[in-house]
Amino acid sequence: MPATALKCRECKAEYPLEAHFVCSNCFGPLEVAYDFSALGADPAQTRRRIQAGPQNIWRYSDFLPLQGGSPGASTRGASRSGLPAGCTPLIRADRLAAELGLKEVWVKNDAANPTHSFKDRVVSVATHRARELGFDTLACASTGNLANAVAAQASAFGMRSYVFIPSDLEEQKILATGVYGTNVVAVKGNYDDVNRLCTELSGERAGWAFVNVNMRPYYAEGSKTLAYEISEQLGFTTPDRIVSPIASGSLFTKIAKGFEEWLELGIATGSLPKMNGAQAAGCSPVATAYANGHDVCRPVKPDTIAKSLAIGNPADGPYALELARRSGGGIDMVTDDEIREGIGLLASTTGVFTETAGGVTTAVLKKLAERGEIDPEERVVIVITGEGLKTLDAVRDTFTTHTIEPSFDAFEAEFAVAGSH
Amino acid sequence: MPATALKCRECKAEYPLEAHFVCSNCFGPLEVAYDFSALGADPAQTRRRIQAGPQNIWRYSDFLPLQGGSPGASTRGASRSGLPAGCTPLIRADRLAAELGLKEVWVKNDAANPTHSFKDRVVSVATHRARELGFDTLACASTGNLANAVAAQASAFGMRSYVFIPSDLEEQKILATGVYGTNVVAVKGNYDDVNRLCTELSGERAGWAFVNVNMRPYYAEGSKTLAYEISEQLGFTTPDRIVSPIASGSLFTKIAKGFEEWLELGIATGSLPKMNGAQAAGCSPVATAYANGHDVCRPVKPDTIAKSLAIGNPADGPYALELARRSGGGIDMVTDDEIREGIGLLASTTGVFTETAGGVTTAVLKKLAERGEIDPEERVVIVITGEGLKTLDAVRDTFTTHTIEPSFDAFEAEFAVAGSH
Ligand SMILES: Cc1ncc(COP(=O)(O)O)c(C=O)c1O
Ligand SMILES: Cc1ncc(COP(=O)(O)O)c(C=O)c1O
Ligand SMILES: [Zn+2]
Ligand SMILES: [Zn+2]
Repeated sequence: MPATALKCRECKAEYPLEAHFVCSNCFGPLEVAYDFSALGADPAQTRRRIQAGPQNIWRYSDFLPLQGGSPGASTRGASRSGLPAGCTPLIRADRLAAELGLKEVWVKNDAANPTHSFKDRVVSVATHRARELGFDTLACASTGNLANAVAAQASAFGMRSYVFIPSDLEEQKILATGVYGTNVVAVKGNYDDVNRLCTELSGERAGWAFVNVNMRPYYAEGSKTLAYEISEQLGFTTPDRIVSPIASGSLFTKIAKGFEEWLELGIATGSLPKMNGAQAAGCSPVATAYANGHDVCRPVKPDTIAKSLAIGNPADGPYALELARRSGGGIDMVTDDEIREGIGLLASTTGVFTETAGGVTTAVLKKLAERGEIDPEERVVIVITGEGLKTLDAVRDTFTTHTIEPSFDAFEAEFAVAGSH
Repeated sequence: MPATALKCRECKAEYPLEAHFVCSNCFGPLEVAYDFSALGADPAQTRRRIQAGPQNIWRYSDFLPLQGGSPGASTRGASRSGLPAGCTPLIRADRLAAELGLKEVWVKNDAANPTHSFKDRVVSVATHRARELGFDTLACASTGNLANAVAAQASAFGMRSYVFIPSDLEEQKILATGVYGTNVVAVKGNYDDVNRLCTELSGERAGWAFVNVNMRPYYAEGSKTLAYEISEQLGFTTPDRIVSPIASGSLFTKIAKGFEEWLELGIATGSLPKMNGAQAAGCSPVATAYANGHDVCRPVKPDTIAKSLAIGNPADGPYALELARRSGGGIDMVTDDEIREGIGLLASTTGVFTETAGGVTTAVLKKLAERGEIDPEERVVIVITGEGLKTLDAVRDTFTTHTIEPSFDAFEAEFAVAGSH
């Protein structure tokens, strides 16, 4: 496989490709390091191999930390085991762009994954690596979507699983997890409490792969596939700007890593997009640090309807800050009302119904447009990471239902004032 | 385009390709007729053209009643307008098969569509045809999923829309419709009342395309793409058996039509699969007629948790009966408890979370397996047509959530008896 080691992001110490996530020298986070020289010097050949691959993230196996060959190599769309993630639509959103006075906006609809969030990508990679390393149980600390993805993937593989969630999670996300026959552990506390408990447990349970704790370096790499797909869908180029939500900051930073790898290897042309991060005002440690010019984040206690983004102590906060600055992007926050409005704006102009996290992303796009920060010539991609059916409270009472008797006259009477007929 | 006329299924009278759905001679339903001779005599060439097409149903434009060229022809996954439907995963379900004592079961997961049901296929075709015919408003009579699909597609195109639903529909489906800014009309009555009202209205509203009333012949053709995809994903062959739900019977009969077209043209090898229909016991007009050896269905008043299948007076019932008999399949019914169990069985063995309709389908597969009607050597495909997040009542109280304080000791105490650590 192309991965060569786990490497400390801070002191660059190297470790074998096992279930480690923190540097024993300096406590920095570990990240997968690669040697891509086996790809050869001809990017055109690499592009062709990708295009001949399966219609899921395994077409990008050359860039993922898994053992030889495409784990999902087989007929298009027909994968032999697990739930195939990825290859979600990139939709040109002209009506949304027009509404915001922009010219070219694309929606990367990552709700179109098996459990309807981008988490299926990261869980796919972490699960395959966990199986290579001999784990028999999957686990995670989740704000909701990860729980869905882990429980589903575990049942697809017939693995045991434990998912840890804050006990005040949306009922939709709890039901869409429990149905798989996983062990649902609702922790009285917020995500940061859940995460602390899981970090402790991961030291005690030798056979458990916590996808976002001891398997975090592999898990994180899964988000790079979003960048690869966007690039491939735009003809192996890069967009000018990405707007993406931030919870821990892993997704945001790994999207950039994906673009940077392909640019360096010549697989994509262009340059690193301006990277704009999106947070809810009720949980904005990264956006606040950005606004204040800080390099690190001060932990907060979350209070927002965007529960999937409610991480008060974001592990990759400093890297997200550095990336936003280096790429010429930024990090913004929006209120709960703006989030609800963002959901409606996206739905009514594109047909894509997103959860609160996507409302955050859409609302930040709107804010950037209103501030005039986006050049009209820019090609902008917003990353919609989750599904509206999972956060229905945000939509309730935002529209009118016309209830009528089953007759033509009743219909006429109800819509008489509408005048549209 | 390959379509030549609308043709009465009963008396074979022909009509122009406009917004008609019923024969003025004999009141039979109209269906699209084709001349596929422009495809040429070499099926290998047709297969290659399909494979070079976009990753959505427009790769099958040669078999759909739309004007020249692929409406969505463009880069893979990047469609210029509308919500691209189709190209959903076909997943080999070895754990489900083993559980049922079968050898080869595949899950066609059509919840992986833009609004999470197969209805996006039929609405895509009806909407494109409606636009060709100059309509500016979309409408439908829906049991829920169609409402989601019509509202979403309308907002993607910036069209006005009216969706008519029974007022007792699942809240999830209502919220996931209203969010698009459509006109939600909740009719006090069941689907058959809604359908009657819409049939009346379609005569009065010249600019409205009711996708499943006056546009029904085009709408219905969209379901053929499920057969094309399954066939393509199995290497241009046909499976031995299909298990698919039945409400009006359109989906069930059109899947067969899709296979028959490709078999006749030599694009797929094999023969027509045994076609097994699935209904809920609480709304089983077709299954009951099948059991009684009748050729037509006696209308019923639906009472089942499978609301999306709650059509008491199925328009295509007689054709579904004829197909089940001719193909060597059958039509079965399952209780609400079996439906809930079917949802759990599918989720826990495949990772696919389906709505009640998919519970019906899975439960019928189980019933067929238990009755020994499926040869162990058979390749069986079950068609999962909708998403579990839309019918959460069916899952509530089917599992235990372990609520704990955020501490290692609390976790240990809760799981002490489990003994699994
Ligand atoms: C829908 C959704 N979007 C975005 C994120 C952000 O992920 P990250 O923690 O990688 O920043 C999450 C995390 O849970 C999520 O559920
Ligand atoms: C999820 C689902 N499956 C199957 C069907 C059956 O469709 P048909 O009316 O074509 O038989 C429906 C119809 O509404 C549906 O919503
Ligand atoms: Zn270090
Ligand atoms: Zn006729």
